[in-house]
Amino acid sequence: MAGTAYGLGIGPGEPDLITLKAYNILQKADVIAYPALEDGASLARQIIAPHLAGNSQNDRIEIAIRITMGEPADPIYDQAALEIGEHLKAGKSVAVLCEGDPFFYGSFMYLFGRLAEAGHPVQTVPGVSSMMACAAQLGAPLAAKNDVLQVIPGPLSEDRLRAQLGNTDAAAIIKLGRHFPKVRKVIEELGLTDRARYIERATLETQKMIPLGDLPIDATAPYFSMILIHRRGDAWR
Amino acid sequence: MAGTAYGLGIGPGEPDLITLKAYNILQKADVIAYPALEDGASLARQIIAPHLAGNSQNDRIEIAIRITMGEPADPIYDQAALEIGEHLKAGKSVAVLCEGDPFFYGSFMYLFGRLAEAGHPVQTVPGVSSMMACAAQLGAPLAAKNDVLQVIPGPLSEDRLRAQLGNTDAAAIIKLGRHFPKVRKVIEELGLTDRARYIERATLETQKMIPLGDLPIDATAPYFSMILIHRRGDAWR
Repeated sequence: MAGTAYGLGIGPGEPDLITLKAYNILQKADVIAYPALEDGASLARQIIAPHLAGNSQNDRIEIAIRITMGEPADPIYDQAALEIGEHLKAGKSVAVLCEGDPFFYGSFMYLFGRLAEAGHPVQTVPGVSSMMACAAQLGAPLAAKNDVLQVIPGPLSEDRLRAQLGNTDAAAIIKLGRHFPKVRKVIEELGLTDRARYIERATLETQKMIPLGDLPIDATAPYFSMILIHRRGDAWR
Repeated sequence: MAGTAYGLGIGPGEPDLITLKAYNILQKADVIAYPALEDGASLARQIIAPHLAGNSQNDRIEIAIRITMGEPADPIYDQAALEIGEHLKAGKSVAVLCEGDPFFYGSFMYLFGRLAEAGHPVQTVPGVSSMMACAAQLGAPLAAKNDVLQVIPGPLSEDRLRAQLGNTDAAAIIKLGRHFPKVRKVIEELGLTDRARYIERATLETQKMIPLGDLPIDATAPYFSMILIHRRGDAWR
């Protein structure tokens, strides 16, 4: 009997924001795989650490999928999919840990595509995404009624950012990093600065929330940060 | 000591898609409140029923917030916020059940606004939204890389639907119901029918997934349904 690969949404950071379903699959998994930095550090592995603390399954296999920034990721996913595929063929279950939700800009989808095309059983377990966690922490509902909500990546060109932001009721701007000054400028030009809320590392102990106007115009944001905007200020109005 | 009101995201339908955090708050809550139809039926109450089955707290108070379609909801939320406020002042904790995520088009935000403005302690616990659950069930990642993802409500005008859908990499079209034929027509005109996937009642036992082109052009969809579109067919490509 072939094993199943699970893309497990483990939530935005606070360990208890994992679902019961993902928690239960995690306890029984023969193999766990997770994205990691070149030095092996993994936020996903760290998030679920408290949930494995009391688990006595000592023969669990762990696979750190090490991604090097600036290098092509395709060969790394090819290799990881082959390795996971071997475990599945041997009848083992494999839980692939995904920060937030696996299918919301998550790297799991590259494994999903490869494993599904190779004919392996794959299931995706949805999770609480960072977007929902940011809204909850900020006390800022994302959208209501017939609002259009756009998720807009910061690396887009200034013109594209302006076009998308100018044509929506609400927005979540993701992947800020070094694109923060460009995003900030477009928001300012559109007169939306007082409607915009900035948050980084939502639900982690290092979480910060800052009114956008209080941040220096040339600031850099960490990867785990987001700006939420609602044209009415509060979605419920 | 005033009690706290919790907006609890309980997930899209499958009971185990609730988070550990929401599950734990639910077990201890003095009062639970939930949206219900006029006759008292409540999907939210039904979703969490298995989680309260073994709970011996017999003095739990339940508040069904009955919404009548086509009648103004404001007085109902005013009244519910007052009733919840009285429990909070008496030191009781109140869990307000929210299908999916509380701040993603959820009616909880109307209570949130009222309770927060009245100075009551309110916390929102994010949940797995229907959008993420639909993507997981369909095996259809929502968006990747620098994709723009738009959430578009079906009741918008045909022109507005065309403009939004014509200007995005990916879309989730929500609130279909009787607007299904109009939405279907716009998708067809934009040549996106073979990129569109339809799902209703995701993760419930009555779930259905149908290729959009196989549905009659004049079909009506239930309230709990969604169309996901990705311009590249699969987001990972």
